[in-house]
Amino acid sequence: MAVYTEVSDEELQAFLATYDIGTLMSYRGIAEGVENSNFMLHTDKGAFILTLYEKRVAESELPFFLGLMNHLATRGINCPTPIRNRAGEMHGRLAGRAAAIIAFLEGIWVRRPQPRHCVELGRALARMHLAGADFSLTRRNALNADGWRPLFDACGGGVDAYQAGLARELDRELSVLERGWPRDLPAGVIHADLFPDNVFFIGDRLSGIIDFYFACNDAFAYDLAICLNAWCFEADGSFNITKARALLQSYAQVRPLEAKEIAALPLLAQGAAMRFLLTRLYDWINHPDGAFVQPKNPKELLMRLRFHRDIASPAAYGLDA
Amino acid sequence: MAVYTEVSDEELQAFLATYDIGTLMSYRGIAEGVENSNFMLHTDKGAFILTLYEKRVAESELPFFLGLMNHLATRGINCPTPIRNRAGEMHGRLAGRAAAIIAFLEGIWVRRPQPRHCVELGRALARMHLAGADFSLTRRNALNADGWRPLFDACGGGVDAYQAGLARELDRELSVLERGWPRDLPAGVIHADLFPDNVFFIGDRLSGIIDFYFACNDAFAYDLAICLNAWCFEADGSFNITKARALLQSYAQVRPLEAKEIAALPLLAQGAAMRFLLTRLYDWINHPDGAFVQPKNPKELLMRLRFHRDIASPAAYGLDA
Repeated sequence: MAVYTEVSDEELQAFLATYDIGTLMSYRGIAEGVENSNFMLHTDKGAFILTLYEKRVAESELPFFLGLMNHLATRGINCPTPIRNRAGEMHGRLAGRAAAIIAFLEGIWVRRPQPRHCVELGRALARMHLAGADFSLTRRNALNADGWRPLFDACGGGVDAYQAGLARELDRELSVLERGWPRDLPAGVIHADLFPDNVFFIGDRLSGIIDFYFACNDAFAYDLAICLNAWCFEADGSFNITKARALLQSYAQVRPLEAKEIAALPLLAQGAAMRFLLTRLYDWINHPDGAFVQPKNPKELLMRLRFHRDIASPAAYGLDA
Repeated sequence: MAVYTEVSDEELQAFLATYDIGTLMSYRGIAEGVENSNFMLHTDKGAFILTLYEKRVAESELPFFLGLMNHLATRGINCPTPIRNRAGEMHGRLAGRAAAIIAFLEGIWVRRPQPRHCVELGRALARMHLAGADFSLTRRNALNADGWRPLFDACGGGVDAYQAGLARELDRELSVLERGWPRDLPAGVIHADLFPDNVFFIGDRLSGIIDFYFACNDAFAYDLAICLNAWCFEADGSFNITKARALLQSYAQVRPLEAKEIAALPLLAQGAAMRFLLTRLYDWINHPDGAFVQPKNPKELLMRLRFHRDIASPAAYGLDA
């Protein structure tokens, strides 16, 4: 749910006057996205999203995020296109916050992805990785393997309070990840948060990828490992190898995977599970009672982490040996 | 904020298949309205609102609410038009709830209304009152003068806990209202909740009235009295007589006010302030700590109630003697 900031009529009109997007017909707060305030605008020229960046997204990083979306969109990737204002800038300020207007992207995120959605996802992800190759800006992954231990430490006693014995298990697992984390894989711009609510479909066709506010430079295969966690487990916790195979095969048809990427997948998938487990755990421990945004339960990520740890080889993901 | 119910892909597709509104392109939860779950739909045929009725709106009352919107829309009143499904019905069921699809109405609600908005409002309100005359269904006002005392009693000790001495003041005021409440004023279908967030404008032109889920049969002048409370006070609590005059005069140009309606306005306005004061007080006292929806502070309604009680005559509303 997300409208954290109220915008006055005058402020909004003044802000829109800096753009050439037509006459405002309506705007409504959108109850999706947990990080920013989002409004849907209709003007006589079309539909747009107005985003006010709340505290998590630093204004200094907007040139990377918005520049990337613009870069990808001009290369034919279906992602939201930032609209430039009359001064040619992709963001301005509104109600004391950095704010941007982005072309509205039609599509629906799939609540229960099927293998056919994973086929589309793999192809789009590979295309995105290739299209990002000549993007000029870079951004370090603040939540990479080096960032997990500090996050774990910040959770402190809350980890065992959440589940007895969990701190010991995660500590051991972190050591394994830190020792073995691969540093020499093919890398470039990755999305780094490609859960189903960030991928739109119209019918069975993937119509867009949204929310690039975790995008960064890191191993391509790590993005795939995030998708394995985000798309290939069922509600009952079981791993769906058909979805994983669909995802990996369709990806590889566009961007063939190197042997070392495949070999690294189980560890990367453990790392991806760890990354989302730790942020959810942190939010779970630190959210005020009855807060506005209900934090996601870390439990399912813990189950996934254990799954990836316990498999014998990448063959468990449906890849041919 | 309002998306209380998650709808699965399959449920939504099955529900939409009962309508002839084209192919679904997107749907997003809307963070407005505190009573129902609202989604904005885009199809290749246009924009729509999907409403899931949560517990406050009884399914048995939907024929009145939706029938009224349909009735008014066919008579040229700018209000959302319910879309009939293939069976000719204006609502169905989705995710265990009654649900309706309504044509999307463009427009923006005005955060800080000006006199020119009150002119538009008065005219539209009078037209709506006249257009409702031949609507065949009726609905009792559950929150009329007879309903306030039980609501006050239900607030119990919370009233004085909210503000010392307030229970005594409200008790006295309720007696005055109960004794003097007029029962013989011109009546018909009223909106009964016409706050600025329920009235849309495009530029300075009123483009629509929404949210008919408190509509009922009651005195027309009571609807005006609600608007006096909802539109004619400034953020600092002061009464803006220019706005009140604009509202009442433009209303009377379309539907002339009878002398007894004018004479009753101060009491009706006290009653309208009391009605919203009591529901807000009730919500304030009974909301769980840190609840999802932050209740509105009753304080401003108390100030308005006192204002209407203390004026010498309806002339204070800017009406000519």
